[in-house]
Amino acid sequence: VFYHLNGDLVPDDEATVSVRDRGFVYGDAAFETMRTYGGTIFEWDAHVDRLEHTCETLGMSEAVPADLRARVDETLAANDLSEAYVRLSVTRGVQSGRLAPGPATDPTVLVVVESLPRGGVDGERVWDGPATLRTARRPRVPDAAFPADVKTHNALSGVLAHLELDRADGESPDEALFRDTAGYVAEGTVSNLFFVADGTLRTPGLDGPVLPGVTRSVVLSLAEEAGVPVETGRYTVREVLDADEAFLTNTTSEIRPVASLDGTRLGGGPTTERLRERFDVRVESYYE
Amino acid sequence: VFYHLNGDLVPDDEATVSVRDRGFVYGDAAFETMRTYGGTIFEWDAHVDRLEHTCETLGMSEAVPADLRARVDETLAANDLSEAYVRLSVTRGVQSGRLAPGPATDPTVLVVVESLPRGGVDGERVWDGPATLRTARRPRVPDAAFPADVKTHNALSGVLAHLELDRADGESPDEALFRDTAGYVAEGTVSNLFFVADGTLRTPGLDGPVLPGVTRSVVLSLAEEAGVPVETGRYTVREVLDADEAFLTNTTSEIRPVASLDGTRLGGGPTTERLRERFDVRVESYYE
Repeated sequence: VFYHLNGDLVPDDEATVSVRDRGFVYGDAAFETMRTYGGTIFEWDAHVDRLEHTCETLGMSEAVPADLRARVDETLAANDLSEAYVRLSVTRGVQSGRLAPGPATDPTVLVVVESLPRGGVDGERVWDGPATLRTARRPRVPDAAFPADVKTHNALSGVLAHLELDRADGESPDEALFRDTAGYVAEGTVSNLFFVADGTLRTPGLDGPVLPGVTRSVVLSLAEEAGVPVETGRYTVREVLDADEAFLTNTTSEIRPVASLDGTRLGGGPTTERLRERFDVRVESYYE
Repeated sequence: VFYHLNGDLVPDDEATVSVRDRGFVYGDAAFETMRTYGGTIFEWDAHVDRLEHTCETLGMSEAVPADLRARVDETLAANDLSEAYVRLSVTRGVQSGRLAPGPATDPTVLVVVESLPRGGVDGERVWDGPATLRTARRPRVPDAAFPADVKTHNALSGVLAHLELDRADGESPDEALFRDTAGYVAEGTVSNLFFVADGTLRTPGLDGPVLPGVTRSVVLSLAEEAGVPVETGRYTVREVLDADEAFLTNTTSEIRPVASLDGTRLGGGPTTERLRERFDVRVESYYE
């Protein structure tokens, strides 16, 4: 396995960062997870836009290298992968030992790739079956305290939610569902939630503490193309439990039906299937 | 400079962690900053208790090594330091690429030390003068969303507050003061706040989003010993602005008077001085 680290391809055991790197000490870093189909990054522009937005929010716009795409392509080639999971990390680099950040004149830029199955119409899912969901006890960090529209190396609230899942009786849930501090449904730890009720596709709006997921955005446009009525807003857990269908979106797992939430059966359905078919067709175009 | 990493003393350029270490990818790590006086860690037990509490909250109690103190002492000896800043980090180590954590069977344990001036009665301050403070625009992450009584590598809310300070007009403030989501004063990014009004020493209570600082706790007990009335509670910014004295506490900078908050002059005073004298005497006992 080769990693791309600060401009160089390096083998596994050389893919290290200093213990003084701010990405390590403070989680002071932006990241993106992407997926390739037939060697091409899916929705590259959307991912780079969000990465740039994250870096801007963290006051380190200058840290994103101009040749980022070339670095990704080199990493894929070095690992001989055309179907891959790709993770980009950009940290503020090694600085003084103080919390107050300086300019990111020497950022750490990392590309990690891993093999995935083929996607598209003839593809294989990365997951075994529909997802079991459980609401997290703790609310999502409010947008006012920390902006929800950035992806960073500060992921502990999701880690705590997964620790709760491990302690859940009986079932072993796949994903935790966050609510906002007012109790409305927000998002999963690594996914966005959609549900179908009265023939309308619904998903929590971006005015709440919700990451603007790239797959979320693709699904909203596919629904529009398919003539499926779409609504974004604030929804209660009860409304999700009463839904006809529900699914999660995530770059790697694409569209994954929700088997159950807090033990109540949900499942996919005709709208989920229509969107999955359209998603697969969209992905298939990357192989042509 | 030698670091203590996973049981070994290593020079600067070998003090690295894998880019797959969860401490790097997710900030999935506990930390403590401590200070030595005359070669001995100040309030060791309090720091270790908090480190253990953090690791327990992160579901990795097993990650704290039994010989932690020996590792710190070895690091101090290798660097020939008796007056030092000491940082401990314990991460969940390298695991699968998923957010859901596994058992911390192979944690990363790091000790970093840096030279400091002598403390105590004849000591030298690590800071140049009283601190200038500015309230942060964003509130502290609420305790309900993420527990405030743990110290982790997820430090971005403090980083964002410092970025705001950099953009503040004119003055260049030293520290940002967080409020809670209801607007009450909470803490600094790396310090606890105290103020004196009507002869009473006041500090935000631990029922708010406030780290139980070790120096905070020492100062509260010193005030009790000195017969200074003490009150903990919820306070407005206005109450701090109207105070007779104010100071910050932090392991490295000990007790530091507050010059101003949002441009309003505050300053230390007789109670601050009494507590500083008692603190210095307490520290001096480490040299005997």
